[in-house]
Amino acid sequence: MKILVWNEYRHECKDEKVHDIYPDGIHNTIAAFLRADGHEVLTATLPEENCGLSEALLDSVDVLIWWGHMCHGEVPDAVAALVQKKVLEGMGFIALHSAHHSKPFKLLMGTSCNLSWREDGDYELLWAAKPSHPIAQGIDRYFKIAHEETYGEPFDIPEPDETVFISSYAGGEVFRAGLCFYRGNGRIFYFQPGHETYPIYHDENVQRVIKNAVLWAKPTYRAPLECPHVKKITL
Amino acid sequence: MKILVWNEYRHECKDEKVHDIYPDGIHNTIAAFLRADGHEVLTATLPEENCGLSEALLDSVDVLIWWGHMCHGEVPDAVAALVQKKVLEGMGFIALHSAHHSKPFKLLMGTSCNLSWREDGDYELLWAAKPSHPIAQGIDRYFKIAHEETYGEPFDIPEPDETVFISSYAGGEVFRAGLCFYRGNGRIFYFQPGHETYPIYHDENVQRVIKNAVLWAKPTYRAPLECPHVKKITL
Amino acid sequence: MKILVWNEYRHECKDEKVHDIYPDGIHNTIAAFLRADGHEVLTATLPEENCGLSEALLDSVDVLIWWGHMCHGEVPDAVAALVQKKVLEGMGFIALHSAHHSKPFKLLMGTSCNLSWREDGDYELLWAAKPSHPIAQGIDRYFKIAHEETYGEPFDIPEPDETVFISSYAGGEVFRAGLCFYRGNGRIFYFQPGHETYPIYHDENVQRVIKNAVLWAKPTYRAPLECPHVKKITL
Amino acid sequence: MKILVWNEYRHECKDEKVHDIYPDGIHNTIAAFLRADGHEVLTATLPEENCGLSEALLDSVDVLIWWGHMCHGEVPDAVAALVQKKVLEGMGFIALHSAHHSKPFKLLMGTSCNLSWREDGDYELLWAAKPSHPIAQGIDRYFKIAHEETYGEPFDIPEPDETVFISSYAGGEVFRAGLCFYRGNGRIFYFQPGHETYPIYHDENVQRVIKNAVLWAKPTYRAPLECPHVKKITL
Repeated sequence: MKILVWNEYRHECKDEKVHDIYPDGIHNTIAAFLRADGHEVLTATLPEENCGLSEALLDSVDVLIWWGHMCHGEVPDAVAALVQKKVLEGMGFIALHSAHHSKPFKLLMGTSCNLSWREDGDYELLWAAKPSHPIAQGIDRYFKIAHEETYGEPFDIPEPDETVFISSYAGGEVFRAGLCFYRGNGRIFYFQPGHETYPIYHDENVQRVIKNAVLWAKPTYRAPLECPHVKKITL
Repeated sequence: MKILVWNEYRHECKDEKVHDIYPDGIHNTIAAFLRADGHEVLTATLPEENCGLSEALLDSVDVLIWWGHMCHGEVPDAVAALVQKKVLEGMGFIALHSAHHSKPFKLLMGTSCNLSWREDGDYELLWAAKPSHPIAQGIDRYFKIAHEETYGEPFDIPEPDETVFISSYAGGEVFRAGLCFYRGNGRIFYFQPGHETYPIYHDENVQRVIKNAVLWAKPTYRAPLECPHVKKITL
Repeated sequence: MKILVWNEYRHECKDEKVHDIYPDGIHNTIAAFLRADGHEVLTATLPEENCGLSEALLDSVDVLIWWGHMCHGEVPDAVAALVQKKVLEGMGFIALHSAHHSKPFKLLMGTSCNLSWREDGDYELLWAAKPSHPIAQGIDRYFKIAHEETYGEPFDIPEPDETVFISSYAGGEVFRAGLCFYRGNGRIFYFQPGHETYPIYHDENVQRVIKNAVLWAKPTYRAPLECPHVKKITL
Repeated sequence: MKILVWNEYRHECKDEKVHDIYPDGIHNTIAAFLRADGHEVLTATLPEENCGLSEALLDSVDVLIWWGHMCHGEVPDAVAALVQKKVLEGMGFIALHSAHHSKPFKLLMGTSCNLSWREDGDYELLWAAKPSHPIAQGIDRYFKIAHEETYGEPFDIPEPDETVFISSYAGGEVFRAGLCFYRGNGRIFYFQPGHETYPIYHDENVQRVIKNAVLWAKPTYRAPLECPHVKKITL
């Protein structure tokens, strides 16, 4: 499989704490553990021309992983629309953490994707709500992330097609943290963990889920979506 | 509206602690607060002949509320099948707490309805995942029940049609606690709170949710489901 | 209830055949039969300033009905985004016929909303797939529209929350023709009939469905969707 | 993969016309084209002891295909419950044609599974509503079956998790003909074609769909569903 990891790559450059956790950027940390699984992995970032994305590049990859936070607004609308189009044509899409508010994810959901949040470094517990799902394989009944930004319901999304993980936090909040959506020819997985100030993508369970999600999101069928003028068939 | 509250009515008769909380049975506590809303409310219990249920009685009510726990197996299969049939014909159905394992609810879901559980008297926090839903009206961002049996995911149910409440507990567990299902002509609401050893149906928020659910579950249309042999229409 | 009917109002002004069917525009035909049901009904059209739409106006109505076809592109993106926002806040939305490709509907679905089509004036049969749904009340097993544009699957939409009508056409095509979606605080109904060259909104069954849909789409709860920074609660 | 094809095997023994089409029974025709794909295929029939089914046998196969019609009532309730249990544990299940009324399918759906029907030998057109779905691969925009029993909406099932095919018939009826349901750890596919008096399982497109469905329904994870008493975790 060929995977593209997109990262806005801003926190790592500006904030020493984040830089220490991800010296080469979140994208390279994710790329590394996916390469270890035998995948071909490319990366692209916001500072690159056209965000490092082109139609030809997106057509060449099976799955796009997206991490963004403070710079959602800097992604041009045309780039977001291109990503949406490619997902609808069949490219898998994995939206991580604050990518709930990224332009491509919001375009694909059609809702505000708003949620409640607080940033106190509390722990998160991720519970497998559907242990038989391909994305939950290798995960126990639950796993704990020692420090994470807290996200809470209501999460304004369409009712998910499959609810794989639900989280709780030290403050008692709950959040649907691992969710599958089928849209057009593509498969979308939203996954909550990944606040930049904690070493979350170094966590083995988080890596396991992302590795599983990449396999799950692989396209079956990929084609431009048409709105054809058809002829009456002969019966 | 005309509502029927069914209760197995066994704990209250056998266990002094439960009796003290519900001296007239859980069914009469629920009936009382629904009557205060102006509804006509009947009750039926397991010890009555045929569980106090008949086709004529079920045809006469808009919504059936079900509480059962230790005696699910004593409900005859034919009674469970009758309840299922009436829900599919349009009668609203509200399954409370351990009614997740009641025969009628399991028949309607088609799954095991299994879940994880422990009984340590921990608190439960119920979060509104869909605050705009009719069943969540009058409820804040969350409400707390001081002591409740803990239910945890995975909850083996079909993906819900609407997820209204999600709970967390003092031990960090999460549970989809308020769920809507559309089946046949009927509407089904599952609601987690209600362990018999705590005064949960005296709680104002719990009462609010059940009052809302009754209005939501009221039938639009009620008719036997047929499998008609039809004739070719004239085009 | 207060309803707003939006129409691009272009075919009626340019095409004599359409003008003869809807001398005052499609919007006024729809408004008239809704007024006959006792609703307060306003209209707005594309030629008006800002398409005749403002946040204050949309905040004042319960449900917005949308008819558009050849001029989708002339609706400013900001107007489409405003409609989307108001639906997510709770305003009901009914998308008629070729509004499958209107900007607001596409924003709300997140998919291409593409379909197959041909325009041969064939009949359409609309079958009630869910006769117990509020929107299907008063409709028989099926109803026929003598002449309609043919729409065919695949219809690129998210899996609907409720499938109320499915159509077939003289050429054997099938199409999911009456569909409910829950998004944010709002309710959305897509309804296939309404090609401008046939007197479809004069049809009694079509009017029945739209009258039902308006009642169904009425908001329960209406509020801006927030993404609040919250504080840890006291447990 | 290891597949079990179950057939009530009654029509073929009693009705010469059916016998001529399926001299070795519908099960052996299906088994033959699946074997040609390299699968290990077993068969079981109603006349065998316990319907030819045992827990050990079901545990050993990946997917169970079910064809039944006139003898649904002769399948013991315990056998139907065993099949349901095994599907919830992860075994794939494909219900063909009149298996919509088979005991295992009805148990899994929780609804009446009623539909409208007529038997005039009309043609059926199956349209791909989701061409990107694994089960639709290799199928064109539609395919035609020259003679089939007509099934029509309303089909009383839970809203499907994925709608893959929708049919129309010579009389204009529509029917959701290819449907995916996720239940417990298992995957269920309902497929309409297969009336016994026509050579439907000799049709190349029908075979293609069943071959695809078998691959799709293969379990990811297989385990008994438990309702465990758990201990509070250490946080």
